[in-house]
Amino acid sequence: MRTLIATRAILTMNSQEALIRGGALLVNGGVIERLLTSEEAASLDDRDVTIVDARELVALPGFVHTHVHLCQTLFRGLAEEVELLDWLQLRIFPFEAAHSPASMYASARIGLAELIKSGTTTIMDMGSIHHEEEIVRAITESGIRAFLGKAMMDINELHPPLRESTRDALASTLRQAEQWHGSAGGRIRYAVAPRFILSCSDPLLKEAHAMTRAFPGMLFHTHAAENRHELAAVRKRCGMDNVEYFDALGILNNVTCLAHCIWLNDHEVDLMAERQAKVLHCPSSNMKLGSGIAPIPRYLSRGIPVSLGADGAPCNNTLNMFQEMRLAALIQKPVHGPASMPARSVLRLATMGGADALGLGKEIGSLEPGKRADLLLLDLSRSWNTSPALTMDDLAVSIVHSCGSENVRAVMANGEWILRDGTHQTINVERTVQDARAELHALLNRAEIR
Amino acid sequence: MRTLIATRAILTMNSQEALIRGGALLVNGGVIERLLTSEEAASLDDRDVTIVDARELVALPGFVHTHVHLCQTLFRGLAEEVELLDWLQLRIFPFEAAHSPASMYASARIGLAELIKSGTTTIMDMGSIHHEEEIVRAITESGIRAFLGKAMMDINELHPPLRESTRDALASTLRQAEQWHGSAGGRIRYAVAPRFILSCSDPLLKEAHAMTRAFPGMLFHTHAAENRHELAAVRKRCGMDNVEYFDALGILNNVTCLAHCIWLNDHEVDLMAERQAKVLHCPSSNMKLGSGIAPIPRYLSRGIPVSLGADGAPCNNTLNMFQEMRLAALIQKPVHGPASMPARSVLRLATMGGADALGLGKEIGSLEPGKRADLLLLDLSRSWNTSPALTMDDLAVSIVHSCGSENVRAVMANGEWILRDGTHQTINVERTVQDARAELHALLNRAEIR
Repeated sequence: MRTLIATRAILTMNSQEALIRGGALLVNGGVIERLLTSEEAASLDDRDVTIVDARELVALPGFVHTHVHLCQTLFRGLAEEVELLDWLQLRIFPFEAAHSPASMYASARIGLAELIKSGTTTIMDMGSIHHEEEIVRAITESGIRAFLGKAMMDINELHPPLRESTRDALASTLRQAEQWHGSAGGRIRYAVAPRFILSCSDPLLKEAHAMTRAFPGMLFHTHAAENRHELAAVRKRCGMDNVEYFDALGILNNVTCLAHCIWLNDHEVDLMAERQAKVLHCPSSNMKLGSGIAPIPRYLSRGIPVSLGADGAPCNNTLNMFQEMRLAALIQKPVHGPASMPARSVLRLATMGGADALGLGKEIGSLEPGKRADLLLLDLSRSWNTSPALTMDDLAVSIVHSCGSENVRAVMANGEWILRDGTHQTINVERTVQDARAELHALLNRAEIR
Repeated sequence: MRTLIATRAILTMNSQEALIRGGALLVNGGVIERLLTSEEAASLDDRDVTIVDARELVALPGFVHTHVHLCQTLFRGLAEEVELLDWLQLRIFPFEAAHSPASMYASARIGLAELIKSGTTTIMDMGSIHHEEEIVRAITESGIRAFLGKAMMDINELHPPLRESTRDALASTLRQAEQWHGSAGGRIRYAVAPRFILSCSDPLLKEAHAMTRAFPGMLFHTHAAENRHELAAVRKRCGMDNVEYFDALGILNNVTCLAHCIWLNDHEVDLMAERQAKVLHCPSSNMKLGSGIAPIPRYLSRGIPVSLGADGAPCNNTLNMFQEMRLAALIQKPVHGPASMPARSVLRLATMGGADALGLGKEIGSLEPGKRADLLLLDLSRSWNTSPALTMDDLAVSIVHSCGSENVRAVMANGEWILRDGTHQTINVERTVQDARAELHALLNRAEIR
């Protein structure tokens, strides 16, 4: 059974960033079979085709968040006004350590509901050290596409209970990779996830990265150069900065995905460009924790691959790509001028940028024949935009600077509707919110904080 | 007829920032008659009382935007990627000059629809030089509270057609003040609005300010220290900076409301504090035009009155207090640390801060007996917040960092519902959007730009 989605316009985000006014998408078995003009759509033999009338809506590729922590969604609003290391030590690590399978599932599920409501079809998630199977379950049920992996931590001076032996961390990661890389019909892939240098021994970092060579398409997902105190501690231990150290260990390459990268030295910028390692830019989180503003225009001018992520709910406090896009654009302009980070570039980071970061540039990130059908449909009239023009620049400005989740009418992932008429198709939201409340309550009692 | 609104919680924003869990508001003739506990509400003699069940919703004072330009709403998305002076010269001034009465009304009306949808009950608006009566008409019909005034410009090197003689500017302003200050049952008041130093002669600035002495409660509303090129031009003409010049002219006092104030020198900060002049902080606009980041924590520590505003839609590109609050909090944290601009302080700027800036601190800005009934009702479940706590700090964090217009269920201004169940009560939105499209189309033809 094929589906024909007739739109007001298709923002393809292909290499020409072509806009097809009045275009239609023909979806077949999870794949975009064709893009049609309105004339072609009208003359299509429509036997065995379900026609979706979205002629008031604009279609674009589903958003790709390359750095989130679904395990933290329950802790939204419970870790305010502190910098990274305090945020981890006093709040997030004790909370994560108190997770049960049920609270982990609830945390992932409510996070996924929010991500889907705001148009996300792919994430890269970093879990905690336990209960990764609950995140896999929630993602599998949700219908979205994901890289995921348990957090590896064989050092934890901030909160010793949240730690494993090097051997256990590597063994459980290997088991998970074998079990889940390529699961859920290919929607789920694995990313080994040593948390950050300060929580990982050198052998752990090296062995974790070595694992990516054994599994085609696997990624190496960690944090780097987020906070000045973290930077000082890394220098103290390693005698050099984060990215230099990854390079010295031989683990900086094009599967190395580094969240934040706010404080890279000149040599590290050269290294990132040369090795084509990925910057996972999280503007809300970087502002909220007072970490700093990553020099993204500089990275882009050097050809370093950049994508966007919400990070965890407690340092944001949303999981909403519209907030990340608007902020990614706005925060650079006082320094780099009002023409820096134009809306089209930001929209690219949120779509193809994410796809490329995850090595999925041939499968998702744009609406093109042969790619997976991961897309969203936006009602732009809800952004009060009355411009008569319908150009790629105008649409990008409207999406990046005026839209929010209220504009999202439908989301399709892998050819299946996961949001339709603004309503979740794979998640019972009311039940999810109730469960999340109950599980958070129980978790806070277990954690004995607050 | 009295109305009793039973809530989940009332954020009073009174001087203690008291939170009343399960509280109810008794509204009578546009005024808050009483705040009741749930027990008091249950035992209230409910003859002649309409009961509104908002027990799933949180009540807070309506937001106060102290700096907007309704005349520009139509131009959203049509003035991208330029700094202030180019933005004015190439786009906004020619557009404003092309306004007809009908396009001005459409521009104001669609802006008001967006402001109401996102919880605003009071604005201070700066118009253009013509057609102010259309803005008055739209505001009167909308039900919200406003200071307003035509822009005064007797110099315009950027776009000479948008200019009046000093005498005409003063005479028409005086006529408008006489006609509208205190109109619409007291909802509308006048603010004289010389646009900025570069568009005003010294006599115009001085006479405009003198007018505020003739009308109790009138304000002086202008722009200052927004952009470095503007600053250089002011120095060239005046031999000093904006605020110093206002002071030298004798027009810096507690009715002087200055939008932006990004680039004040130390002496000017002293002057602002001493004279209790008002800073109207517009974070989105300041970022979008690349103007800079106003040092708000410094101003607050000096006791300078600060409030928030969206500025015009083409430099934002929303008219949404949730965006301004979140950004006002986030942009300071990388410089001043994660504890700077806590959510409670930001929420205060958006409510009592706005009321105080407008000299309305005894009438609006908090929910207290005797104040006007200007309020909004928020559904916090729509921000995916599952925290079991219901404290003032938690609620403020949720409102500032996670909420958006999708959380706003109802808005009351002056005791009248202007939004209910998410639906406008005073504006036909569909018709307004249609009219705005048609009027923008005609205006762009008149302006012969683009």
